[in-house]
Amino acid sequence: MPAVDFPPDATLADAGEFGLIAALTEIFEQGEHVLIGPGDDAAVLRVKNGHVVVSSDLMVEGRHFRRDWVGAADVGARAAAQNISDINAMGGTATSLTLGLAAPADLPVEWALDFARGFAAECAKVGASVVGGDVTRSEVLVIAVTVLGGCTVAPVVRSGAEVGEIVALCGRQGWAAGGLAVLARGFRSPRVLVEAYRRPEPPYAAGRLAAEAGASAMIDISDGLVADAGHVAVASGVSIDISTEAFEIPEPLHAVSAALGADPIGFILGGGDDHPLLACFSPDDALPEGFIRIGTVGEAGEHAVTVDGAEYEGSTGWTHF
Amino acid sequence: MPAVDFPPDATLADAGEFGLIAALTEIFEQGEHVLIGPGDDAAVLRVKNGHVVVSSDLMVEGRHFRRDWVGAADVGARAAAQNISDINAMGGTATSLTLGLAAPADLPVEWALDFARGFAAECAKVGASVVGGDVTRSEVLVIAVTVLGGCTVAPVVRSGAEVGEIVALCGRQGWAAGGLAVLARGFRSPRVLVEAYRRPEPPYAAGRLAAEAGASAMIDISDGLVADAGHVAVASGVSIDISTEAFEIPEPLHAVSAALGADPIGFILGGGDDHPLLACFSPDDALPEGFIRIGTVGEAGEHAVTVDGAEYEGSTGWTHF
Repeated sequence: MPAVDFPPDATLADAGEFGLIAALTEIFEQGEHVLIGPGDDAAVLRVKNGHVVVSSDLMVEGRHFRRDWVGAADVGARAAAQNISDINAMGGTATSLTLGLAAPADLPVEWALDFARGFAAECAKVGASVVGGDVTRSEVLVIAVTVLGGCTVAPVVRSGAEVGEIVALCGRQGWAAGGLAVLARGFRSPRVLVEAYRRPEPPYAAGRLAAEAGASAMIDISDGLVADAGHVAVASGVSIDISTEAFEIPEPLHAVSAALGADPIGFILGGGDDHPLLACFSPDDALPEGFIRIGTVGEAGEHAVTVDGAEYEGSTGWTHF
Repeated sequence: MPAVDFPPDATLADAGEFGLIAALTEIFEQGEHVLIGPGDDAAVLRVKNGHVVVSSDLMVEGRHFRRDWVGAADVGARAAAQNISDINAMGGTATSLTLGLAAPADLPVEWALDFARGFAAECAKVGASVVGGDVTRSEVLVIAVTVLGGCTVAPVVRSGAEVGEIVALCGRQGWAAGGLAVLARGFRSPRVLVEAYRRPEPPYAAGRLAAEAGASAMIDISDGLVADAGHVAVASGVSIDISTEAFEIPEPLHAVSAALGADPIGFILGGGDDHPLLACFSPDDALPEGFIRIGTVGEAGEHAVTVDGAEYEGSTGWTHF
C-alpha cells in the first residue's frame, strides 16, 4: 500500500474520514490470526481454545487525559495498556483490539497518527493486532477501545477469594498517581513518576503466571488499590486487609510527598493508572515471580477493605460520575 | 439480584458509576455462550468454529442522533442495529456486544435505562447478549459499541465482486433518509418514514442466506447506496451500475418528495441508516429470498458507480469529517 502523506499542519477535516482511515490502517500491522483485517464491515479472527475474552473501555479528553500533559503517542500507549491489562487480569493474553476515535475536525492529523503509533507499539508488546475500529467527528475527543484475547487456563474472576488466602501484588503501584500529582501542580519532575503516568508498564506476563499458579481471584488496579481490592472483596464475599509494611516506597515518591506535604502511602493506597495485578493465593503455595504479599483475606465484615487492620479514611480511588 | 430503583428525576451523577452499572446489568440477560458476563475485568464467551467476527462503531449526539428527534429506546435500538448489521454483512450472526456510554453527569438515569432497554431488545432479535462495557462522564454523549459474532460459512468480504455479476439488494432503502428529511424540517409524518429512521429494520437473516447462496461480495448500506456500492466497486476493482428502474418507490417517499420538492430516487441513492444488504451474485444463480436485482458489475472505469449508465451527480452519502 502506498504511504499516505499529509501536510504537517493538516487537520482531520483536511484528511477526511477515508484519508484518515487509510493512514491509520497503514500503521497497524496484522498478525497471522487475523483472517480478515481492517477495511471491511467487520474483521474476522482465528480463535483458539473455543472461547474469547473481551473488554471495552472509554477515555475522554479532560477527564482521562490532557493533551498538554501527555503526548499523543503516550495517550495511545495508555489507551492500549489499560485494555490489554484487563485481559491480563483474567489470566489471559490480548490478541486483537478495535479502536474508536471520536475527534474534533480541527485535531491535527499528526496527533491522530502519533496516537495510533503509540497504540500500535503497546499492542506489539503482547503481539496483539489492531483489527478495526471507527472514526467520527465529535466536539470532545473520546477514545473507545475493545480488546479480545484468549486464555490457556481457566480465567481468574474477581469472586474466587477465600478466607485465609494471601493477597499479592505484581507491578508498580502509586507511581502514576505521583506523576499525576506532579503534573497537576505544573511540574515535570521527578521525571520517572511523570513517565510512569504517561506510559504505564503493566506486568503483561504476570496474569497468565498467576492463573497457572492457581490464583483464586484477580483484578488489575486501575482506579485505586483500596477501591479495586474492594471489588474483589465484595465479589468474593470476604474482606481484605492491606498491610502498609509490605510496600517499599520508592525514593521519588518520598520526594514528591515531601514537596507536596502528602503521605506517600496515600499514592499507593489511592492511586490508579499503574495497572499492577492484585491476586489471591492459597497460603500453602509459593507466589509466582514478581508478586509480593501485601495483605490477607478475612471474613466479610463492616468494611470490605481495611488497612493495617483499621478503616481506611484516605481517598480510595477514582469515581466516574 | 434486587431491582435497582432511582427517583424519577435522578441523573447519572445521582446514580453514580456503580449504581448505573448495576442497573444496566440488570437489563442485560446473558445467553448460554456467556461463560463470564458483565462485572469482571473482562467477559469470557464460548466461540464456535474457531473464529470470531468483530466490528466497532461510534455514535455522537448531535451528529448521529438528536435526543429531541429520537427517543432513548430508539437510539439504543439503532446503536445495536447498525452494529449487528455489520456482522450480517459478512454473512455472520451477532452473538455478543459491548456497550460504552460516555455521558453528561446531568443525563437522566431514565434516559440511560430506556436506551439500554432499546439496545437489549434489538440484540434479542438475533439472540445476542450484552456482555460488558464501560460508563464514564463526558460533556458530549458518545455511544461506543463493539459486536462479536460467528459465521457458519466463509465470510463474504467487499472485494470479491466480479465483472458480469448481478448486484442485488435486500431490505428497505431510502426510508430512513426520508424520515430524517421530515424530522429536519420539524415534521413528524409520514409516520412510517419517521419510524424507519428511528428504528431501522435490517434484514438480519439475509446475510447468512446470501453467504450460503454464494454471494461474492457484500456490504450493508449505512452511509448511502451509491457511496457504499462504491466501496464494493473499489475493493473489488470493478464498477457497479445501478438501475433506478429496479426500485419501486414507496408511496410515503413520493409524498415527502412532492412536499419538499425533491426527487424520491435521491433518497434511495443517497440515503443511509436503513442498513439493507447489497450483495453480488453470479448471473447463473437464483437470488436468495428477499433480494431484488438493482444493477450489474462491469469493468473498472472512470467512475466506481454509475446510475443508469451515467455519472451520479446527487449526494452520494454521509461524510464524517
